[in-house]
Amino acid sequence: MQKKVEYNEAIKTKYPEQVVIAVAKDPNGKANPITLGWTMIVSGSPPMMAIAVASTHYSIKAIRHCKCFTIAFPSADMADAALFFGSHSGRDMDKFAEFDCETAPAEVIDSVLINDAVANFECKLESETVAGDHIVFVGKVVCSHTSTEPKKRLYTVAPGHKMGAL
Amino acid sequence: MQKKVEYNEAIKTKYPEQVVIAVAKDPNGKANPITLGWTMIVSGSPPMMAIAVASTHYSIKAIRHCKCFTIAFPSADMADAALFFGSHSGRDMDKFAEFDCETAPAEVIDSVLINDAVANFECKLESETVAGDHIVFVGKVVCSHTSTEPKKRLYTVAPGHKMGAL
Repeated sequence: MQKKVEYNEAIKTKYPEQVVIAVAKDPNGKANPITLGWTMIVSGSPPMMAIAVASTHYSIKAIRHCKCFTIAFPSADMADAALFFGSHSGRDMDKFAEFDCETAPAEVIDSVLINDAVANFECKLESETVAGDHIVFVGKVVCSHTSTEPKKRLYTVAPGHKMGAL
Repeated sequence: MQKKVEYNEAIKTKYPEQVVIAVAKDPNGKANPITLGWTMIVSGSPPMMAIAVASTHYSIKAIRHCKCFTIAFPSADMADAALFFGSHSGRDMDKFAEFDCETAPAEVIDSVLINDAVANFECKLESETVAGDHIVFVGKVVCSHTSTEPKKRLYTVAPGHKMGAL
């Protein structure tokens, strides 16, 4: 049986929720990572992925500037990095300089890969759509990478940004 | 360290992946459920959710007709229903008649709720965007419901539609 409840109550049932780190270079060439839970695959052939980014976030400017972004699946041991990248703004700092997180140049797009991630997907921006207080960016995956060592993916397992493996 | 691999290999790292059942009434008034893994929240205020549906699927017609849909989070004991709804087409059958799954009328939109789900979200269609071989539908959540009993959410835990709790 179902009972009607407020949205904020109902949406607490969403956990565990996947975590990704999207990376895009700003107009100064600074690679800016942002942690996102709102992401999905949107197409199989060609492969495409979408991310929803809050309209006020600095990453909006970076993605619109370079018209591409990396989607990294952080590994379970990257919870601290994911929390840092998700709670600071690239307007004020160089997040990759402030928080130790090795990167390597992407192969096809002008972005970077996160070395310790489970996987990295290089995406070329295909479209953007306003959806409430977020912008949905759809990217076509043009190059894919996985970790050379087996790793588990990071999830948000409970409210309050509680993250871990499953 | 990362190594370049084919997309189909890299995307195998996505599991566990959330599962939802979207329901929309077709032009004959038949409620048609479809199981989807490609879904995300896209806005916090107002609350909005998105689903990606293959362009060839019968649900496209139903969603465009009624301009609304339910998003249900199936419970861990609904794996068989999720598999059935995801592997049959509403063109050929009444899925809710063929597979025992209790529903109740939605409160605000012209759709149904799934009684055994963890939660149900009634969505009014806001936009649609073509993304490769899928259509991304964005809906505004206008009413929310949760199970009166505590339940765990269903996930796809491995390739081959292997589903279960976490």
